[in-house]
Amino acid sequence: MEKIKEGKTKTVFDAGNGNILLKFRDDVTGTDDVVDPGANTVIGKIEGKGNASLRLSKHFFELLKKAGIRTHYIDANLDENTMLVRCAKTFGDGMEFVCRLKAAGSFVRRYGRYVKEDQPLDYLVEITLKDDERGDPLINEETLIQLKLMTKDEISQATNLTKKITKLVEEECSNYDLELVDVKFEFGVVDGEIAVIDEISGDNMRVRKNGKPILQKELCEIICGN
Amino acid sequence: MEKIKEGKTKTVFDAGNGNILLKFRDDVTGTDDVVDPGANTVIGKIEGKGNASLRLSKHFFELLKKAGIRTHYIDANLDENTMLVRCAKTFGDGMEFVCRLKAAGSFVRRYGRYVKEDQPLDYLVEITLKDDERGDPLINEETLIQLKLMTKDEISQATNLTKKITKLVEEECSNYDLELVDVKFEFGVVDGEIAVIDEISGDNMRVRKNGKPILQKELCEIICGN
Repeated sequence: MEKIKEGKTKTVFDAGNGNILLKFRDDVTGTDDVVDPGANTVIGKIEGKGNASLRLSKHFFELLKKAGIRTHYIDANLDENTMLVRCAKTFGDGMEFVCRLKAAGSFVRRYGRYVKEDQPLDYLVEITLKDDERGDPLINEETLIQLKLMTKDEISQATNLTKKITKLVEEECSNYDLELVDVKFEFGVVDGEIAVIDEISGDNMRVRKNGKPILQKELCEIICGN
Repeated sequence: MEKIKEGKTKTVFDAGNGNILLKFRDDVTGTDDVVDPGANTVIGKIEGKGNASLRLSKHFFELLKKAGIRTHYIDANLDENTMLVRCAKTFGDGMEFVCRLKAAGSFVRRYGRYVKEDQPLDYLVEITLKDDERGDPLINEETLIQLKLMTKDEISQATNLTKKITKLVEEECSNYDLELVDVKFEFGVVDGEIAVIDEISGDNMRVRKNGKPILQKELCEIICGN
């Protein structure tokens, strides 16, 4: 299979017939040796991390499918750490829809003048560009439209989907006594329709148990079992 | 008169009867000894700069008044470098509505992946918080609403006003063969209605003549005469 791209944590292959194979690796991103899924630099490897990301993604993509939400997911091979997906057209080089239930992370760094850490938010959606070099900048709707990255209708669909999926993920977390603080999704056009793409795992969400942050592998153990 | 606040370039006094007196000083902001009206650090003084800001503000506020647009402006004293204005309630501690006719400055730094310097934009509006410590962060409409900084209706009014006023400023600039690249306005509630507040001068806009940037004093000479 032809390798298309080496991402920070996944390798992308052309699987033919308009399908793509994603190989989940054990690389973790972080800042100053501290693991941070939101960071843009790979700081090392954690054994089993790729497998945990894949198992969680499989779990959440199947949950979305049951709820009738379109995704790029086809199948997962847990032995090979690969996920087979439909080929998607990203918006620009990719952007993320963040949904916040409580103020944390970059939101507090930006708006700390008016918001306290952990202050409840009402499924607040923010859109950021995937652009490591420029620190994944926030972008508003008018700019997305004028730079021809998304149409008004696509933004509206993706925003509504983001809120809907966040509620599903929140509910699933609460089934395991986990609290969802925020989560981000990527969308793309799959077979002509907007769909959730990339992965849905601990790398995409901030989750807490009894107030303490839960990272990828532990999240996988809690939700997917051993 | 009681001093209320010492701003970066203006001192604010209580003038009684719900009025405020703004004293324009000669301080200029910049980065690394280069004058930049958008910067948050005072780097020195330029003689006559406060007077130029005031004369331009007087000019533009009177232009807006003629066009029936509500502002906080009452009167200016060019000998004392002071402007008398109505007291305004700011949104939060203040935010700026930026209107862009061409891509420049922070817009290109953020979206350089998709936009070229000087690429035409269609009166694109962005909203930023006035917060030196946090680098005047961009904020989206949903966040403004959820943090109770502005209502949906106030955002809509201020955005429409921003585009309307930008067109007036652009037209006035073009009368002097000047090109307006971008401009920012601050709004507040004055006597119960949304109005343009603060100043409107070279510190608020990026203006070029024959492709070259024009700063405060030269802009004042061109538009207000000697």
